Parts: sequence; structure tokens; C-alpha cells
Amino acid sequence: MTTPAQPPNVKLPNATQTRLSLYLRAVCELEAQQVVATGSQQLAELCGVPPFQVRKDLAYCGRLGRRGQGYAVRLLRRELTRTLGLDRRWHYIVVGLGHLGKALLEHPWGEQFVCVGLFDPDPQHQGQKLYAPALPQTGPRSPLELPPVPRELRVRPLGDLEQFVQEQTVDLALLSVGAAWTQGSIQALQGQVGGILNVGSALLEALALAADAASPKPHPHLQDSGHEENVTVVEQVDFQVSLQRLAFAVLQRDTPYPLEESS
Amino acid sequence: MTTPAQPPNVKLPNATQTRLSLYLRAVCELEAQQVVATGSQQLAELCGVPPFQVRKDLAYCGRLGRRGQGYAVRLLRRELTRTLGLDRRWHYIVVGLGHLGKALLEHPWGEQFVCVGLFDPDPQHQGQKLYAPALPQTGPRSPLELPPVPRELRVRPLGDLEQFVQEQTVDLALLSVGAAWTQGSIQALQGQVGGILNVGSALLEALALAADAASPKPHPHLQDSGHEENVTVVEQVDFQVSLQRLAFAVLQRDTPYPLEESS
Repeated sequence: MTTPAQPPNVKLPNATQTRLSLYLRAVCELEAQQVVATGSQQLAELCGVPPFQVRKDLAYCGRLGRRGQGYAVRLLRRELTRTLGLDRRWHYIVVGLGHLGKALLEHPWGEQFVCVGLFDPDPQHQGQKLYAPALPQTGPRSPLELPPVPRELRVRPLGDLEQFVQEQTVDLALLSVGAAWTQGSIQALQGQVGGILNVGSALLEALALAADAASPKPHPHLQDSGHEENVTVVEQVDFQVSLQRLAFAVLQRDTPYPLEESS
Repeated sequence: MTTPAQPPNVKLPNATQTRLSLYLRAVCELEAQQVVATGSQQLAELCGVPPFQVRKDLAYCGRLGRRGQGYAVRLLRRELTRTLGLDRRWHYIVVGLGHLGKALLEHPWGEQFVCVGLFDPDPQHQGQKLYAPALPQTGPRSPLELPPVPRELRVRPLGDLEQFVQEQTVDLALLSVGAAWTQGSIQALQGQVGGILNVGSALLEALALAADAASPKPHPHLQDSGHEENVTVVEQVDFQVSLQRLAFAVLQRDTPYPLEESS
């Protein structure tokens, strides 16, 4: 980790972790609207989760209030942030700066995520100066009180990636390069960064892992890379599988029952 | 559906549907490499799935070969395509043409997905001409034999969306507009398109549904829209939750055991 911080106290189930992320977003929205208190009913409506599930999930965040009295929004935001491990700084790089990479660069990840480098295989992109959310000012603040100031970063050649991640502290890599560059990028990153979010062309193996489990696992190709703590975690965002899943759901809606047996 | 076609014969479990999508991609890659036969072992390695799981999943595709003889790649591609409901044409539109929307437009979804319209709320984007994968020539062909010819489409104002989806046949909408436009776009699309892939700012409710289940469900706000068959299915691709999930997995790798109980 970039900044020493308290490790998460509990082992969270994957589905719980995902729902806590949703609650955090809802709570940040409530705080932006100057709401000071909320309850499991409101969070349930905002997040489309049953109220009993909200109460059960929030029990992972420790003591948040008295039963029946609701939650203080600011306390809840702080405890969700801590429980999700977002109370520390995460240094990330963006590898690949086509439309998808630029969308990742512009995405408001929150002030705890700081972009420290940009890389692209295309000489036409190299040397370009792009704006990334900047290091926030020091001190504990709400993500909502202090909008980060954009900071200029120069796009480096992909060939510089391996040395960069060896010399600099990089926690996460957001990868959106074409198929030809994916495996090489992964190899340069493995063991040097904590995790890779692959949004570009899919590594089939990484994909299958992501599809099989709600949470990322160490990539099998990376498991041989040495010490357990140097295993790089891979999470895949796969548009193709999402679109096919959507299309299939539409078909099943239209023809809910089998019309004939497959031969 | 745009084209009348045989409905899927069987109810597929969600996880199976996702794995079949992965097998299809692997099989298309094998076919592109002129491989004519494959087996569960090879597919298992390519997709990171155990061989017994591959055999079990492929049983949903009907009769594919004799036990121990492997699968003919072309037959397997055809049967996977049919089982996944991809043996028909899907008309889609892209709503929102920032970096993310342009990445969606450029994505090679496959020749069965045909872009029929582009919409953006920003007057600066409206009227722009962008290239979309074109209608393929008619006749049954492999996606690999016939690369689709790019076709020019003009970006229309978001205000035209509602009338467009009422007048044209649109199966799917790929949505990547900012938070201010999401709800309005969903309202214009509901009941008129089969499904929405929301890649832009998250609808919390849709998100929670997507997080809770492996497959999309009708959006609760859309369930009142009338007949069951007009319910629009929503699938969410959520970068924020994916990145937080990745960060949390990295933390859990570093501190696999609870160091202290939460108070």
C-alpha cells in the first residue's frame, strides 16, 4: 500500500463488499444533498436492496447507531469508507489511451485514487498531455468538500511501463490496450502492482475467473510469480459478455418457456 | 426481435450462459486460426474453467459429437451461437457519444449486432458523422469470413430518442450519458427497447440488481410500464464498483486474516 493504514477488520463476503460500495455511493449522494441522517429503509430504496439486507450488511461496519434511530450520514460514510479500505491513497496508472482509456482517466473515482502515470503503445498518443484528477490537499476531508484539481500528465511509451512500475509505487493499473498488447502489459505489471482492472480486450482466463466468482482472484498465469504477497489480482470488465447476457435476458423474457426440446 | 428466429430451447442458468459466451469467443479464435477440432480440455485451458464444467455446460447445446471424439469447431460455433440467441440480428443504438460511447461504437460486437442510431445531449456532438459496423451481407456466414464494412451514422439530438424508438425497431440501447441524462433516457427507452446496457453513470437501483444477481432483471421502475413482454431489461457495467472490488481484493491479499475485531 502507498500509505500505511489500518487493514480491514473483517473478511467481507464478495456480495456484501459490492453492496457496501453501493451504499457508499448513496450515502455520498445524500451528504451532497445536506442530508444528515438516514435509515435502512431509505438506503434500501436507493440501492434496490431489501431493508433487512442493508441492516445485515452494515453490521460489518461496526457500531453505527442505536437500533431504530437510523444512521448519521457522515459517520456512515466514514465507516463504509474504512470498511471498504478506501481510507488510504491508491496510486494508479492508465495503460492504453484510446477512447476507453480516456473515459477511465476522466472517471471521478474519488480523491483516494490518484493517477500517477499514463502509457500507450501508439506513438501518436505518446507525448500527449492529458488531465488527470490531482493529488488532493492533505488532511481528512469528505470527497465532496474538496473537488480535486486536474493535473497534467504526459503519455509515456508502453516500453517504459516495466521500469516505471519497478521504480515507482503503483497500486493499481487500469488496462485498456488492444489484444496485441494485453499479455505483454500484464507481464510488465505482474508482481509489481497490486491489481489490474482489465477493461480492454479480454484475457480469456482472467475473464473466466471473473465470471465464475463475484470477486477477482489471482490470475493463474501470475500465481507462479513468486511470493504469495506479490500475486497481482485481476478484475475484468467485459462489455462483450455483458451485451450477450443482456440479449439473452431479453430472449428469455420473450420466450420464458422451452418451446421444444433440443435434439 | 428484429428477425423472427427460433427461440432458445432451454432455460440456461446465468453462470452457464456467461461461460457459453466465453467458449464462443474461444471457439471463434480457434476457427480464425484454422483449427477444425477441439476438446473440453483445450476449451477448459483457454477459458480457465475445469474440463468437467465445460462438458456439462456444452450439454446445453445439444448433440455435438461422440464422447471422447472432441468437437468440430465450426459445428460448436454454430450451436453456441444458436443456444446464446445470437443467430438473429440485434438492432442497437448508442446513447451518449463521449469517450465511453465512442468506445462502445467502435467495439467489435459481432455481425449480428447492427447499430441503427446515435444520440447525444451535447449540441457539439450532434450532427457529427461517426462510423459504425455496417449491416453484413445476407446469408449464413461465419463472423470471421466477412468483416463488416463501416457505415456512417449521424449523431442525433437526445430529444429525438423517444420518437425514434417508437418508430424504429430497436432491440438494445447502449447508454453512456452523464448522470443528468440517465433517468430521462431510460424513460424514453422503457417499453420500447428490449434491453439497456447502462455503462454510464449508474442508476443505483439498476446497479443493485446487477450486483445481486449474475443476470439482469427488469428494472423495478419499469415494472409498472404495462405488459410483461414490454418490460425493458437493464444490465449495468459499473467501473466504480469494479475498481473498489479490485482494491478490496488487493487489501485482502495483503491482510488475509482479521488483525482486530471491529468495535
